[in-house]
Amino acid sequence: MEKRMAAATASASASYRLLNQKKHTSKRFLDHRRLVTNFGELHRSSSSSRGFMHHCGTAPLQSFLSRFLWALQKSSLNHIQNLPGIQHRTFGLKNVIQDEEELQTANTDWMHKYKGSSKLMLLPENTDQLSQILKYCNSRCLAVVPQGGNTGLVGGSVPVFDEVIINTRRMNNIISFDEVSGVLVCEAGCILENLISFLDKQGFIMPLDLGAKGSCQIGGNVSTNAGGLRLIRYGSLHGTVLGLEVVLANGNVIDMLGTLRKDNTGYDLKHLFIGSEGSLGIITKVSILTPPKLSSVNIAFLACQDYISCQKLVFQAKRKLGEILSAFEFLDAQAMNLVLDHLDSVRNPLPSSIYNFYVLIETTGSNECNDKEKVEGFLVDAMESGLVSDGAIAQDLNQASSFWQIREGIPEALQKAGAVYKYDLSIPVEKMYDLVEEMRIRLGGKANVVGYGHLGDGNLHLNVSAPQYDDAILAEIEPFVYEWTSKQHGSISAEHGLGLMKAEKIYYSKSTATVELMASMKKMLDPNGILNPYKVIPQSLLLS
Amino acid sequence: MEKRMAAATASASASYRLLNQKKHTSKRFLDHRRLVTNFGELHRSSSSSRGFMHHCGTAPLQSFLSRFLWALQKSSLNHIQNLPGIQHRTFGLKNVIQDEEELQTANTDWMHKYKGSSKLMLLPENTDQLSQILKYCNSRCLAVVPQGGNTGLVGGSVPVFDEVIINTRRMNNIISFDEVSGVLVCEAGCILENLISFLDKQGFIMPLDLGAKGSCQIGGNVSTNAGGLRLIRYGSLHGTVLGLEVVLANGNVIDMLGTLRKDNTGYDLKHLFIGSEGSLGIITKVSILTPPKLSSVNIAFLACQDYISCQKLVFQAKRKLGEILSAFEFLDAQAMNLVLDHLDSVRNPLPSSIYNFYVLIETTGSNECNDKEKVEGFLVDAMESGLVSDGAIAQDLNQASSFWQIREGIPEALQKAGAVYKYDLSIPVEKMYDLVEEMRIRLGGKANVVGYGHLGDGNLHLNVSAPQYDDAILAEIEPFVYEWTSKQHGSISAEHGLGLMKAEKIYYSKSTATVELMASMKKMLDPNGILNPYKVIPQSLLLS
Repeated sequence: MEKRMAAATASASASYRLLNQKKHTSKRFLDHRRLVTNFGELHRSSSSSRGFMHHCGTAPLQSFLSRFLWALQKSSLNHIQNLPGIQHRTFGLKNVIQDEEELQTANTDWMHKYKGSSKLMLLPENTDQLSQILKYCNSRCLAVVPQGGNTGLVGGSVPVFDEVIINTRRMNNIISFDEVSGVLVCEAGCILENLISFLDKQGFIMPLDLGAKGSCQIGGNVSTNAGGLRLIRYGSLHGTVLGLEVVLANGNVIDMLGTLRKDNTGYDLKHLFIGSEGSLGIITKVSILTPPKLSSVNIAFLACQDYISCQKLVFQAKRKLGEILSAFEFLDAQAMNLVLDHLDSVRNPLPSSIYNFYVLIETTGSNECNDKEKVEGFLVDAMESGLVSDGAIAQDLNQASSFWQIREGIPEALQKAGAVYKYDLSIPVEKMYDLVEEMRIRLGGKANVVGYGHLGDGNLHLNVSAPQYDDAILAEIEPFVYEWTSKQHGSISAEHGLGLMKAEKIYYSKSTATVELMASMKKMLDPNGILNPYKVIPQSLLLS
Repeated sequence: MEKRMAAATASASASYRLLNQKKHTSKRFLDHRRLVTNFGELHRSSSSSRGFMHHCGTAPLQSFLSRFLWALQKSSLNHIQNLPGIQHRTFGLKNVIQDEEELQTANTDWMHKYKGSSKLMLLPENTDQLSQILKYCNSRCLAVVPQGGNTGLVGGSVPVFDEVIINTRRMNNIISFDEVSGVLVCEAGCILENLISFLDKQGFIMPLDLGAKGSCQIGGNVSTNAGGLRLIRYGSLHGTVLGLEVVLANGNVIDMLGTLRKDNTGYDLKHLFIGSEGSLGIITKVSILTPPKLSSVNIAFLACQDYISCQKLVFQAKRKLGEILSAFEFLDAQAMNLVLDHLDSVRNPLPSSIYNFYVLIETTGSNECNDKEKVEGFLVDAMESGLVSDGAIAQDLNQASSFWQIREGIPEALQKAGAVYKYDLSIPVEKMYDLVEEMRIRLGGKANVVGYGHLGDGNLHLNVSAPQYDDAILAEIEPFVYEWTSKQHGSISAEHGLGLMKAEKIYYSKSTATVELMASMKKMLDPNGILNPYKVIPQSLLLS
């Protein structure tokens, strides 16, 4: 009772402040409407006629902000009735970020390659709040960027100009977990690593795992259809995500949050939002099938002399380790050297010689003896047939973790080494490494070309490392890398998405008719184009 | 050379016939246009104002047919230029089915519950032909029914009135198979069992298997997102289908036939067509990831005294057999008795006592000794803890096949037993059998209530068997069965789809906003509503 009283008093006092504030803002309010509209128009037209342009005029944005805050905080007057989902008591100033330092982080991507100039980040605490924000922004044609952990690599999660950032990090509740079915339901802002820890206590695991797990959010994972290290075993999120709650651009909440393994009642529309990088709607809740945690894990770190051996090894592993194989990763000598040079904590478990390729194999099963026997048998065969030149099996958790550190440390080592051009490609396994070799020839000694990735899934991470960014190097890489991949019927983005980096390059991997159909979807679901603009779909298609 | 000559002669003679025919039909042709338009309008309005109505007037259809054949066969005149994909030499009369007997089969569903009155079935031999047919039908607002093996159970693959049937059975080529990646690319009309046999020779398996495999086509499987017996291991088709080629209502061919495990370049639109039952487009080609065939298969047939034991057993199996579990099916005593009564070839492998429930467990792995040890260990534990009362492990292929015959024979036994009301439901495992028991109480002795299905996936097949169809029995079952399932947040169609049977019942499992979004998709992709009308989506939404 006392608590309620306190809340009521706080609310009354907030209303009072706002009433006073209204007196000052009522004149400006009318002006804002014009400015806001201008802002919206400017925003939408900027890429069509003049290409990308940073319009740093903050006046309209500030106007929007004043009005937004006014609407948010004005509790007892008419306006709040139009924002029923936003409780001014909870959606207070703490969820409206204007602090420059915080905004700088939110405006900048992980690679420091893309930088927006947003002046406003909102942190909704629930679906209703997020819905009201979108409804409002949509009615004013105000562009927004959905943001999770901001760990993306293609500029998809930061503003291009001064779009409003909607970060889901305060929506981080686990809603339910069913230990019979293994179905986890949680809010979009849950950090992947927290979900992994939660499930570990229940005897389950997440069906996806990736290097960014400490920061990335499950909503972002699903929005970008994150792949990662366990895809070879548990498949893509299109298979494991059972349900979603999504807010459309107009604020409509679409409840597709089923928890059933099988449900064939109509079109399975959740798939539209898996991998569409927040451009069709913002994911607010996720229901996902989690596999039981199996007790026996084996990790082997192997050396191969040539790529053909790696290729034969993955074929053998799928057959002989079939049901227990949970990761098959590879890196070349250049990647290994980078990690050894830049990460102090890492050492090569096979230091006796210099090998051209290294492979990390992980198995996960229910029976330690059986699994060990299988893995050892596989390795003996691989050594005898000459596919593997040397190898080590992790004897304890520390060693297992140190093997993984090599593979997972590559992106960090590349960052430390200087400028890096990153390409995430799907290419038929037998052709995959040809690209790395061709790229080395093209670049001569001008840069260090590094190949690693998820060999088991045909996914190459091609990275070009140079002391600093250099247009001459870029011109050697692009469009060559995309053209080469396209010729092999590969994908120019296996798991990172298109974001801003590759939106205009979509035709390298998709047919014209398919891209046009995508554009129709976008126009239908987001007619004002407010959701993550300039990303995923070529702008020319959306403005026609 | 001789062959070519013969074809040219045949073609010339066909042209001649048609030229003559044209003389007779030219006057009628003008009339047809009006009639065809009327037919289209009639078709589209029939369910809106007066509910379903069989309009058996064949005049407009015959008009269409004459014109269609005329267009198809008229080789040297202007019209054929508008149908460039249809080669009159191949798309001859053999692919235009007007034979009454054949049409009767195509008009009638497997259960003899739904019957259309189509007078025309077309059998395109390739995507171009199918595209031209749709383009033509769309331009005239002529409704079509895509049909594969016609093994569906919800009236989705037969006409409601006299829609043109487009059967894909002549598009049955395997296009490619890559034994490194395990990716199979084939045409939509390939029969599932043929694909299974083909892959078997390559050392691979299909990730789906179902009772209808001898007749069903892969295009139909994908269109209906077929589940079946291996879903517990390999997941749904949303996970295993890598690419599709689809023809839209307007004849546009959408090439999404990727063969990559990972491809995040834009919206993954193929998922729209998986499970949309041919109402958004017709699938013409499929690319699918096939798992390697593993050498060790174990099949156990077990008896449990109560449902709670079955439930505990599935939980244990997922944990202890985890990585090798490939099926977990159950049936109740009523299902067993039906099979024993109606199928001569089946016998109960556990005849010593009468048990309430039977469970079939299949494991598939790479190491015979290990797997046997695991399965035996699991069964010993299950027996000791009292979950299992009796059990048998198949000692050879014959015995394995005889165990599967019990489970797979249930639908046939039900057909032989008389009239059957079939319900395919997803319900949380712990509640699943409550529905069977409640239904028995409701129906008293009036009908035999049978429960079986894919326990591992939470999928119950509830069947009510009666001597003949009886409205009083139906009134006891529906809407109760849907309301009950909806209350448990279950799905009223786990794997069979909605078809005609459950289109209007979609709201039991989907929110209003979701269904409205589905309707928007349908209107966008098929604005004339020609594709599989009256199915999947409530008609009222499409006419608004």
